[in-house]
Amino acid sequence: MDDEKTVRLNEIIDHGSIEDFHQFYDSVEPIDFAQLIADFDEETIDKVTTLMADDDLASLLEEADDGLRIRIAYTLNNERLLIAFGYMQKDDIVDMLGDFEVGRRKEVINLMRSGDRKIITDLLKYPEESAGGIMTTAYVSLKANLTVSQSLDVIREIGPRTEVIETLYVVNDAKRLIGSVDLKILLSSPRTTMIGSIMEPHVICVEPETDQEEVAKLVSRYDLNAIPVVSKKRVILGIITVDDVIDVIVQEYDEDLLQMGGVSREESLDTTLHESVRMRLPWLLINLATAFLASFTVKLFESTIAKVVALSAIMTIVSGMGGNAGTQTVSILVRRLAQGDIAWEDCRKPFLKELALGFVDGAVCGAVTGVIVWPVYKNFYLGLIVFLAMIGNLLVSSLFGFLVPVIIKKLHWDPAIASTIFLTTATDVLGFFIFLGLASLFMPFLV
Amino acid sequence: MDDEKTVRLNEIIDHGSIEDFHQFYDSVEPIDFAQLIADFDEETIDKVTTLMADDDLASLLEEADDGLRIRIAYTLNNERLLIAFGYMQKDDIVDMLGDFEVGRRKEVINLMRSGDRKIITDLLKYPEESAGGIMTTAYVSLKANLTVSQSLDVIREIGPRTEVIETLYVVNDAKRLIGSVDLKILLSSPRTTMIGSIMEPHVICVEPETDQEEVAKLVSRYDLNAIPVVSKKRVILGIITVDDVIDVIVQEYDEDLLQMGGVSREESLDTTLHESVRMRLPWLLINLATAFLASFTVKLFESTIAKVVALSAIMTIVSGMGGNAGTQTVSILVRRLAQGDIAWEDCRKPFLKELALGFVDGAVCGAVTGVIVWPVYKNFYLGLIVFLAMIGNLLVSSLFGFLVPVIIKKLHWDPAIASTIFLTTATDVLGFFIFLGLASLFMPFLV
Repeated sequence: MDDEKTVRLNEIIDHGSIEDFHQFYDSVEPIDFAQLIADFDEETIDKVTTLMADDDLASLLEEADDGLRIRIAYTLNNERLLIAFGYMQKDDIVDMLGDFEVGRRKEVINLMRSGDRKIITDLLKYPEESAGGIMTTAYVSLKANLTVSQSLDVIREIGPRTEVIETLYVVNDAKRLIGSVDLKILLSSPRTTMIGSIMEPHVICVEPETDQEEVAKLVSRYDLNAIPVVSKKRVILGIITVDDVIDVIVQEYDEDLLQMGGVSREESLDTTLHESVRMRLPWLLINLATAFLASFTVKLFESTIAKVVALSAIMTIVSGMGGNAGTQTVSILVRRLAQGDIAWEDCRKPFLKELALGFVDGAVCGAVTGVIVWPVYKNFYLGLIVFLAMIGNLLVSSLFGFLVPVIIKKLHWDPAIASTIFLTTATDVLGFFIFLGLASLFMPFLV
Repeated sequence: MDDEKTVRLNEIIDHGSIEDFHQFYDSVEPIDFAQLIADFDEETIDKVTTLMADDDLASLLEEADDGLRIRIAYTLNNERLLIAFGYMQKDDIVDMLGDFEVGRRKEVINLMRSGDRKIITDLLKYPEESAGGIMTTAYVSLKANLTVSQSLDVIREIGPRTEVIETLYVVNDAKRLIGSVDLKILLSSPRTTMIGSIMEPHVICVEPETDQEEVAKLVSRYDLNAIPVVSKKRVILGIITVDDVIDVIVQEYDEDLLQMGGVSREESLDTTLHESVRMRLPWLLINLATAFLASFTVKLFESTIAKVVALSAIMTIVSGMGGNAGTQTVSILVRRLAQGDIAWEDCRKPFLKELALGFVDGAVCGAVTGVIVWPVYKNFYLGLIVFLAMIGNLLVSSLFGFLVPVIIKKLHWDPAIASTIFLTTATDVLGFFIFLGLASLFMPFLV
């Protein structure tokens, strides 16, 4: 179906009229249109923007991803760009300007009307991943001494230019946030009622420096459709809407998922070979260092292995299982720590449980392995050693799988990135050490 | 701060009046209150619910998690429960009843008024993770031939009992969905305008059988604040609001993250030891089976290792690095596939890139390893073999890391669960095979 649309769009670009184009654009959602043109070359994109109405161009710029947005902007002169900005939300304009090269950004900002210029320059000061960086300045605020009827006039006037009107913010004369009103309550209240008397005085809000992850947690916890951003003096600076919060949630989760797998969050299937090497190789080299640690542990026991070669085949089972069990523990902890820190005193019970779990799982896996190893290598003691080593290494995996993420979090670092490295180092090195060490002790029974 | 609140709450429960309690409840958000009482025993929870006003009890039940909700319900008799239900959204009631034991569920449903009973029984039929299972029946629908003024009367009347009014749905006489109106447009239109003339005819909607993950994708892609659920004949059955969609997104991501680590999505830090063993042990036993496969591969080369014991220390580096590099590829693929399937023809370019990446990363890591192994074991050929084996195994890791998730997705299974198992089986078995195989071939140069 998308292919049909691409064919039709190409026809219109080559032979169609502005009306044909307009009709086509109206028949699809802006984000789907953005996807259709994402693979076009610069020349074709230039033709597309020439055919587009200004407000359609604005909606396209709002929905396109960062890369496409820059490519589209590249085909526009500054005048056209400013016209499109006139239809766009300030947070989207700031997002876009943030990706511009410095020269063009300054050029465009200087051409803005002074009011807009001030707002945009102020917004550009906030870090991209802070509340200030994702807020919009288009919201409805009402003074507490307005009546319901007067408020509705304000909403009629400003509403169409804002994103969310379901929650209205109430301010005092100094523009400080003093409450919020649900539009449903407002609509069903008598027309002469004062806003101050129907407002909810307790409003959950954030400061512009608040991390976007914290913002997402609040919105999701309290089921908000927007959250106001206020200064230290509670002057309202902007609001963050729930659709932007969803983007934040998706982005933060993607980070955790990719980082646990040892990949940068910037990487995708389309990343170039050169970039991928640059992003993935350092992680592999760190892992290589830990692999050498494990390898040298084995080297320590070369004389033991020389006497019983079978050990070399069996030792990989013990170390591997430690890594698997430890990854389970790390996954649970990383997920839990993403919701917030754990106090040391709350760690005791789950930590002891993980250790018990390591013992039970180790005993079961060790017994299964031992029962297979015993007849295969025709040696009871080899089976017994595997059984004991497996319990030992799964205890190690519980210990490190639990403590490593907790400690990394206490150090204000990201548990998703580094936990697995430390974990597998521990389970490999200690896994080999426990198994081969036991084998050295039991050597008289093995040869 | 939370500790202070707990102390104060306990005081009120033991010595305070209903007024004190009411004042306390009003001073906190329902979800924070739910967290405060989560650790209380049944007796104290009973005291709390006795002190609570009916509408507060309803808001608490809406915000409490599944476990607490059931514990609270346990302290209530059916009459009180039905009174609380009177203040609650239908989707929350259904959620709650779904967790009841069958006997009590039937009891409560039979006590409902016949209208409510019909709605609830219908909603209970949908799977918990489908659009039907998460939709609410409280929404505003308008007939197309109403005027703006008449519509506002409807909104005033029904609005306060619904969750979202920012988008209003327009239906024809047969209750079929024919469009939607943005409340902002409605408010700023002349009072005699017909709804039909300001509605947007194209509405994105889903059927009750649609999977919740699909629902979340649509809401997030098109920045909706609600999405209507319609029957095959486009009769509107309910709506899904954005706050429920956020819950779905969080839940689905948690699933992927935990499953990639080999943990069930139901598990958390508080899961009992017995339950944790039941959920984690099967995964470990599957891994144990693949560990045996790798171990038997090593066993095949016992005579080779007996000649050059150093091989046993070095082989673990090659197999381990394959696993690490493959996990990177799998992470990228799992993330990409969560957004939707990839067509085979779109696979070619990224697949070739992954292979090239495996070659480059393999060559670099192999060279580093070789350069260290050569002087440590005083044998150039041993270094050369490691170099070649590393390239080979990182090619294997690219091959399997890419194809395994894609194939699992084509089979309509979840790539997050099983990909790593197949991947590490391949990188372990083939990693050992390639390295020890090369060593056998080069044996004259090694001894």
